Amino acid sequence: MIITLKKDIDGQQKQRLMQKIASCGLKAESSVTNGKVVLSLSGNTYAVDTEILRAFSIVESVKRIEDPFKLASKSFNPCGTEVSVNDVKIGKGNFCLIAGPCAIESERQIVDIAEKIKDAGANLLRGGAFKPRTSPYSFQGLGKEGIRLLLKAKAETGMPVVSEITCASQEDLFYDIDVVQIGARNMQNYELIKKVGQMKKPVLLKRGISATVEEWLLSAEYLLTEGATDVILCERGIRTFEPTSRYTLDLSSVPVLKERTHLPVIADPSHASGNARFIEPLSLAAAAVGADGLMIEVHSQPEEALSDGAQAITPEALKLLCQKVKYILDANKKF
Amino acid sequence: MIITLKKDIDGQQKQRLMQKIASCGLKAESSVTNGKVVLSLSGNTYAVDTEILRAFSIVESVKRIEDPFKLASKSFNPCGTEVSVNDVKIGKGNFCLIAGPCAIESERQIVDIAEKIKDAGANLLRGGAFKPRTSPYSFQGLGKEGIRLLLKAKAETGMPVVSEITCASQEDLFYDIDVVQIGARNMQNYELIKKVGQMKKPVLLKRGISATVEEWLLSAEYLLTEGATDVILCERGIRTFEPTSRYTLDLSSVPVLKERTHLPVIADPSHASGNARFIEPLSLAAAAVGADGLMIEVHSQPEEALSDGAQAITPEALKLLCQKVKYILDANKKF
Amino acid sequence: MIITLKKDIDGQQKQRLMQKIASCGLKAESSVTNGKVVLSLSGNTYAVDTEILRAFSIVESVKRIEDPFKLASKSFNPCGTEVSVNDVKIGKGNFCLIAGPCAIESERQIVDIAEKIKDAGANLLRGGAFKPRTSPYSFQGLGKEGIRLLLKAKAETGMPVVSEITCASQEDLFYDIDVVQIGARNMQNYELIKKVGQMKKPVLLKRGISATVEEWLLSAEYLLTEGATDVILCERGIRTFEPTSRYTLDLSSVPVLKERTHLPVIADPSHASGNARFIEPLSLAAAAVGADGLMIEVHSQPEEALSDGAQAITPEALKLLCQKVKYILDANKKF
Amino acid sequence: MIITLKKDIDGQQKQRLMQKIASCGLKAESSVTNGKVVLSLSGNTYAVDTEILRAFSIVESVKRIEDPFKLASKSFNPCGTEVSVNDVKIGKGNFCLIAGPCAIESERQIVDIAEKIKDAGANLLRGGAFKPRTSPYSFQGLGKEGIRLLLKAKAETGMPVVSEITCASQEDLFYDIDVVQIGARNMQNYELIKKVGQMKKPVLLKRGISATVEEWLLSAEYLLTEGATDVILCERGIRTFEPTSRYTLDLSSVPVLKERTHLPVIADPSHASGNARFIEPLSLAAAAVGADGLMIEVHSQPEEALSDGAQAITPEALKLLCQKVKYILDANKKF
Repeated sequence: MIITLKKDIDGQQKQRLMQKIASCGLKAESSVTNGKVVLSLSGNTYAVDTEILRAFSIVESVKRIEDPFKLASKSFNPCGTEVSVNDVKIGKGNFCLIAGPCAIESERQIVDIAEKIKDAGANLLRGGAFKPRTSPYSFQGLGKEGIRLLLKAKAETGMPVVSEITCASQEDLFYDIDVVQIGARNMQNYELIKKVGQMKKPVLLKRGISATVEEWLLSAEYLLTEGATDVILCERGIRTFEPTSRYTLDLSSVPVLKERTHLPVIADPSHASGNARFIEPLSLAAAAVGADGLMIEVHSQPEEALSDGAQAITPEALKLLCQKVKYILDANKKF
Repeated sequence: MIITLKKDIDGQQKQRLMQKIASCGLKAESSVTNGKVVLSLSGNTYAVDTEILRAFSIVESVKRIEDPFKLASKSFNPCGTEVSVNDVKIGKGNFCLIAGPCAIESERQIVDIAEKIKDAGANLLRGGAFKPRTSPYSFQGLGKEGIRLLLKAKAETGMPVVSEITCASQEDLFYDIDVVQIGARNMQNYELIKKVGQMKKPVLLKRGISATVEEWLLSAEYLLTEGATDVILCERGIRTFEPTSRYTLDLSSVPVLKERTHLPVIADPSHASGNARFIEPLSLAAAAVGADGLMIEVHSQPEEALSDGAQAITPEALKLLCQKVKYILDANKKF
Repeated sequence: MIITLKKDIDGQQKQRLMQKIASCGLKAESSVTNGKVVLSLSGNTYAVDTEILRAFSIVESVKRIEDPFKLASKSFNPCGTEVSVNDVKIGKGNFCLIAGPCAIESERQIVDIAEKIKDAGANLLRGGAFKPRTSPYSFQGLGKEGIRLLLKAKAETGMPVVSEITCASQEDLFYDIDVVQIGARNMQNYELIKKVGQMKKPVLLKRGISATVEEWLLSAEYLLTEGATDVILCERGIRTFEPTSRYTLDLSSVPVLKERTHLPVIADPSHASGNARFIEPLSLAAAAVGADGLMIEVHSQPEEALSDGAQAITPEALKLLCQKVKYILDANKKF
Repeated sequence: MIITLKKDIDGQQKQRLMQKIASCGLKAESSVTNGKVVLSLSGNTYAVDTEILRAFSIVESVKRIEDPFKLASKSFNPCGTEVSVNDVKIGKGNFCLIAGPCAIESERQIVDIAEKIKDAGANLLRGGAFKPRTSPYSFQGLGKEGIRLLLKAKAETGMPVVSEITCASQEDLFYDIDVVQIGARNMQNYELIKKVGQMKKPVLLKRGISATVEEWLLSAEYLLTEGATDVILCERGIRTFEPTSRYTLDLSSVPVLKERTHLPVIADPSHASGNARFIEPLSLAAAAVGADGLMIEVHSQPEEALSDGAQAITPEALKLLCQKVKYILDANKKF
């Protein structure tokens, strides 16, 4: 951490700052740039809130040199983390395909889709029971009953299942859910995140639509400090000015994350583009850029879907996509 | 709502779409633009999920012409809503000043600030007990004890108080809190919003950092459909590419909201700029643009603040700001 | 300027870096943060391209502590610059109102508007002859003839005039134009900017729609290094995700600029909002936040305008706005 | 084009609007949505400025249903355009690799790099002689001499060359340059674009850092209306809030463009990421998503580069990248 002080500062103020630095458990070494004092701080800087230092009026700027997180950082586990969900492995060379409908709608719907995506090559089944919807008038999901139906589909197909939790009070319902998803809208709902961390289950943490990579990893750090060990990051597009995609899939985040964290990262082209036609090319791009997997919305009859049908592909399209992704992964392995 | 169909569409597909439209309780009138059919829909379009229609492959685009909300819309209460918090009124010409520390730190701190901001001209006292912090290593607030201290300051000064709720399970603690705040990070935490709506208390709803005005009003609609009546909107800056402010205070949202909703809207220049030096000019701008109030972070000793000291002004600076805002409001009244 | 080096670096590489630093005319002082070397550089850092240093593989980051410009910086003229255009003064307490049509359409149109806005209280007349339009099929301006008509209006009313230059080859036509405008789309057209700087006339430099404050001031620096002295900055909104305004007027940039530069700064609410209804409140906000003037689009018959009629107000609306702005300025002067 | 009118409008105003619509050569068909009149317009809507219609006070909104361009649209050449540069083909299944230094620095530098990238598998040589630099103190390119050196490298290696033009007055210098580049900063410098269109040479049109896909295609339309036929689009990243990449490479734009235009599109991961380490994964992603080529900055000694060394890879790294891209393209061909 590097602090730059303003010019011509008061000795007493500087002393107070040095005391604050010491009280944070940090040591300071000093140098000078064009008349301004530069303090280079050593110690557990990741745990220090820069705002506490920036509050001093003599401070011009505070800049972190190291990550503001520890358990999520690459150096904590340089070889990378391989998440295991039953016998499915994610990360460290294991590519996983998560597929399924946006929302669970009926037993027939979810079981039918589960069977078809398994046949198409998917490893995990996704399905939403609690749906955070922008409008109170949109379908809000089947709730508890949805979870029951998802577990039915799991029993019938043997596929592990992923579902989104939206409130800490739903904890008990997720006992048999294999991967607990924290959605983009809740990426900074820290009360929920803490509770999910304490569940000690695999977690799929989606990026908030305007979260920086660093903020995202700090949410992962919350999970890890609470006891979770198997955290999968999911890039799902960020909000930009461009209207032709619902969000802009930020594939640059994948190699950036590979440098900064040991956690696996997958991509969700469905929510990013909001458009079934663009899912295949973006999936191939995600596989090529080095993602550890994909999460794709699939519906047997998109026109009858109760939510987000426009961004769902059919199981047949998924099968084709799967084959193409495999070619890309094979190409990547030749390197 | 207007649907445009693709060219050369199949009659059967169109029939299925027309059935879906009818099942949504809408009527369609048809016209043509350059060979494409345009369907103009009438009925309670606000309650219809456009994605359900966009899922049809023959649909090229779906565009709302009316607001996707009803209770929050201007037409629901064209004269505007005046929120009453004890004897403080907000909206319809009543300007309110909410001030106080980012976080409640001690009895002495909160009571001292409360007395000083009251003297400076503030109408409500703010103070955070549950703090959603980006890092798990930052001060997380005093929690339950913080609420107790805030109520102490309320008792001592007679000022109504505002505090942020971060989890539905905190409901009971907010029984004597006058205004329940939903923070920017939770603006799309719909489980929390529904619960707060059911508390039937005045609510301060902050804009999410990348929420559109429409998404923000849809969150207000959630509150109103659950039973809340007194909802205050708070513009607190949006995330942009510009690094000199922490967020970009979007003052254009104020006149836009005045056209689209009956709810009062205030501005928070502290969180927007993240910098005490810019709070005064932005406060004056907010008053001039037509905001119904301000929310400003104040700390007696910003350098000792446990959170966000760099964006807090002193009670003395608040007093001066108050006087200047009054001049602007007086100027506005001359029109 | 502060350079942080990676850990465990090679002595030879460091030596090459130190030579490069010396060849840039800078001196380095060294300190350490958690095992990483921090180099604090002194000298004319504003003139050094940080990328040249960032290209060294041992460099982790390069951070400027001082402004990357000199002539535009506040310290170059701490009292502020007052631009004089004939007898109109801009900056240092002088508020100016620039008004006129988006495009010059005919002699009658421009003379008529000129007379009306003068009566309404405007100080300068704006009018576009060369119009950079997003579509090649939109009205592109009257060109040379437009300049002639604008000078006619100047002669009839005595008002100084502002017009946009879009190509260095137009230089001669701007001989009698009082203020040469560089539009948002050309804010990084450095060939044009250099030529305009050499004209040694007052320049109105609009902010690019996605330019940071720093990039904007660097474009001003180009003008100043080429010989211009009277540069007026014009905030005209930045591109964000919010669709209710065409651009988001970034009023935070005004107090930021007041700290960083001596140049006056005005605001253009017409191009920012793209909507006549929002021009008045945003104008009042700009006056309150400390802007040195406004630039507003005015048309006698907006429905007949050949370009941007939707964002033009009538001369009558301008007169009312003028009065209201005056009240705000009077309020500001009471401080 | 679809116009929605406000409720309860005046008959006379509507008549004036209908006259304006007719004067634009358009026909209107009418329908109704919840009491608002909807006008569906037919005719050459691409050539009509929506702002002219939006200026009518009775108009609530104007929405295009068709592209605002014609020559650049997919329907103008549904089979796609194959650009030929000497014997290099771009588009319609032909992948091209453009490589070379950011700036031409010396004969030895450019010839050396040219030879090495040819050996690595590049098809075209890039090199900047006129450099638009954010700071006036940065290296501005060798200008005319740079062009001479680039042509020398072309003569020595036989590779066609690409270089950026920054002012219409440079036209003559570009006589032997094979592809004329319009840079991101000049994507809306329409005076320059018109002149380049008239040169009737292959053009590489970079996306502006905050240009929408539609604005970008409208700039291409300017080129095409002026006589250019061989226009290559180049995605180079857009400005977002994320700081870990200099810009965010928007790979979604590639499939979007494939639907909307017949022009080939390539990607520039160097300028997007600003970081040599991320160029390879982003290049593979661009190849997988369907781009028609890549433009990559290469320098034999990045640490000695006069500009942008941090984003340049070595010729050796290019060779490896080339091989990997080939695997991805082979995988794509299997589909």
